[in-house]
Amino acid sequence: MKTTAVIMAGGRGERFWPKSRNSCPKQFLSLTKDGETMIQKTVRRLSAIVEAEDIFIVTNSAYIGLVKTQLPQIPAENILAEPCARNTAPCIAFAAAVIAKKYDDAVMLVLPSDHLISYEKIYISTLRKAISVAEEGKNLVTIGITPTYPETGYGYICFGDENGSAFSVERFVEKPDLATAKSYLASGNYLWNSGMFVWKASSILSNLRELMPEVYDGAVRIGESYGTDAFGDVLVKEFTDFPSESIDFGVMEKAEDIYTIPGSFGWDDVGSWLAIERINQTDDLKNYFDGDVVAVDSKRTTVCGGKRLIAAIGTRDVIIVDTDDVLLVCSKNNTQDVKKAIAQLKEQGRTELI
Amino acid sequence: MKTTAVIMAGGRGERFWPKSRNSCPKQFLSLTKDGETMIQKTVRRLSAIVEAEDIFIVTNSAYIGLVKTQLPQIPAENILAEPCARNTAPCIAFAAAVIAKKYDDAVMLVLPSDHLISYEKIYISTLRKAISVAEEGKNLVTIGITPTYPETGYGYICFGDENGSAFSVERFVEKPDLATAKSYLASGNYLWNSGMFVWKASSILSNLRELMPEVYDGAVRIGESYGTDAFGDVLVKEFTDFPSESIDFGVMEKAEDIYTIPGSFGWDDVGSWLAIERINQTDDLKNYFDGDVVAVDSKRTTVCGGKRLIAAIGTRDVIIVDTDDVLLVCSKNNTQDVKKAIAQLKEQGRTELI
Repeated sequence: MKTTAVIMAGGRGERFWPKSRNSCPKQFLSLTKDGETMIQKTVRRLSAIVEAEDIFIVTNSAYIGLVKTQLPQIPAENILAEPCARNTAPCIAFAAAVIAKKYDDAVMLVLPSDHLISYEKIYISTLRKAISVAEEGKNLVTIGITPTYPETGYGYICFGDENGSAFSVERFVEKPDLATAKSYLASGNYLWNSGMFVWKASSILSNLRELMPEVYDGAVRIGESYGTDAFGDVLVKEFTDFPSESIDFGVMEKAEDIYTIPGSFGWDDVGSWLAIERINQTDDLKNYFDGDVVAVDSKRTTVCGGKRLIAAIGTRDVIIVDTDDVLLVCSKNNTQDVKKAIAQLKEQGRTELI
Repeated sequence: MKTTAVIMAGGRGERFWPKSRNSCPKQFLSLTKDGETMIQKTVRRLSAIVEAEDIFIVTNSAYIGLVKTQLPQIPAENILAEPCARNTAPCIAFAAAVIAKKYDDAVMLVLPSDHLISYEKIYISTLRKAISVAEEGKNLVTIGITPTYPETGYGYICFGDENGSAFSVERFVEKPDLATAKSYLASGNYLWNSGMFVWKASSILSNLRELMPEVYDGAVRIGESYGTDAFGDVLVKEFTDFPSESIDFGVMEKAEDIYTIPGSFGWDDVGSWLAIERINQTDDLKNYFDGDVVAVDSKRTTVCGGKRLIAAIGTRDVIIVDTDDVLLVCSKNNTQDVKKAIAQLKEQGRTELI
C-alpha cells in the first residue's frame, strides 16, 4: 500500500513570539544554527520513506507562499489550504478525504510540522514499524515517546499489552502535575503523546464517521470535489462549518482498538523558548548564544540575537530574543506568559507586532 | 567677591553604556523623562547664583561641540578644553588658573556635571552658605551629604566641630564595606563625599602650589597664556605633562584647614544604571519603564527603551537598555561589570560600539 505523509502546518506558534509572527509562524522558522526551518527538517526526514509527491502539507491559506518557497519539491496540489483554523480533527479529516480520493486508500503518517528529532534513523525505523502495523489492519496507531523525565507539559498514553509489533492503548491522559508525572514514569506504563499518528485513510475516515459524523460528511464532500473546479467553494463552505476540535479529543480518546509504537529518537515538541537550550549545544555555563553577543558572568542565558550587539551581564535563567521591531526579555519561569504579552498587544490593536 | 562655577564635564560615563558612548557620555544624556541632559540640569540649577558668563565648563576637547549645542548660553571662551584626560586635580588647577587670570580672584563652585539634585532650593541655599564661608577666608570647603543609608559606593567625610557655619573636616575615607558604612551612619560623624567643592581660586592655587607643585606651575603657565595666541600650544604642552590625579587624593586628603557644609537636597551621583530607579518614579512593582514596553509579571525591572517594543516577561532585578546598535540586559547585581563588556569590545577592536 502507498505510504503518504500529512504534515500539519497551520499553527500560529505564539509561544515563539517575537521571532514567530502571524505572518511567519514557528514551523517556517529556523530555531537551530543550521538555518533549516522546522518544516524543512520535517519533510527532509521523511525522504527515506515517502516520495515528495506523496507528502501533503495542510496549512492556513495565508502560509501557502511560505510553503511553496520553503518546500519547492512538494507539488502545488498537495498543499491543502485551510480557509480557517479548526484544530487537528478537521485538518486530518480534510487530508484523509483528499488522500482517499487520490489513492483510494493509503497509509497516512500524520505529523506535526514543528517538532525536532535528533536520532533520525531511529525515527524512520519507528515509522516503518508503525506503517507495517497500520498496513496489517490495526485501527489507529500513535507514536508514543519513552519519557526521559517527568514532563508536565505533555499528555501521556497509558499502554497495555504487546500485540504484534505494537502495544494496545489503555487511555490517553491530559497533562499531569509533577507528582502524577513522576508516578507515570515510575509505573513504566506511560508514554508521552507525541501527536504523531499512523493509520490508513480508510481507518481514520471510518472512525470519524462514527465519532464526528458532521466532520466526516463535510470531509467527504471536500474529498469528492478535490481536483474539480468546485473544490475551492466546497472547501470554504464545509471547513468553515467544522467545529474546532483536536483529533485527540474528537477521536483518539473515544475510539476503540488503538495501538502505540514506543519510540525513543530524541523527540522534542519545541513547545516554548525553553526548548532552545535543549535542542542546541550550550556552553559550560549553560548559555546558548546565537548572534553577536558579549557576555560577562552570565549563566543559563539563552540569546537569539538579531542585527545588533547584545551585552548580557550577570544574567541568569533568562531568554533574550531580538528582532527588528520587538525585543523580548523573558524569565525562564514565564515562557508560557509570552501569550499574555501578545494578548496585551491585541487589545491595543497593535497587530503589526504580533 | 565674584562667584564663578566650574563644571567638570570630561568624564566618559562608561557605566551608562550603551546609552553613554565615547562620542556622547553620560553628562550629555538625559536619564530622566523630562529630556533635559545632566549638564543642562547642572547649569540651570546654578542660574539663581551664578551668571552664565561666570560659568566655566571643563571638558575633553572632543566634547566642545556637545557643550556648545547643549549650553548655548555659555560664552565660548568659558569652555575649557582638556587635550587629554588627567582626572580632577589638573582639571581644577586649569580652571583656577584661568579664573585667577580673568578675575584676579573669585569664589569657585567646583561641581560635577552629571549628578542629580531633587531639592534645588535647598541645594542653592547650601551653596550660598558655602560661598559665604569660602569668602570669609576658610581655606577649602566641601559639600558633605547627610547619608540616608549605608552606601558602599561613596567615599565619606569624617567631620569634627562646628566652626562658624561649617564643620571642620577630620579626614576623608575611601569607600567602606557595608559593616563600616553602617558604623559610619551610627556614629553621626560621617557625611558622603559629594565631589562638590567651594573655595577661592587663590585658596586652591596656594594649596596646589604646596601639595602638587608641578601641577601648580603648569596651571599658572596655562593661566598666563589664557586669552593670548599662545594659549592652545601652552595648554597642550602643560596639560599633557600633568599626572593623572584626583583632587581628593592630590589635595583634599593632605591639606590642612578643610571645612564641610552638610547638605541634604536629594543628591544622587547617578553612578550606575541602578540610579535610574532612584531618580525616576517607579510603579507599584518597582518597575521603571521608559519607552514602548509591554510587561507581564515583571518586578524591579528597569527598561530604558529605544525605538522598538520591549516585552519584559517575568523579569526580576534586571536592567534593559535598548539602543539602535547595542542592547544591554544587565542584572542589578552586576552594574559595575558594564565596564568589563566595554573592555571585551575594546580588545576586539570594536570601538564603533563603545
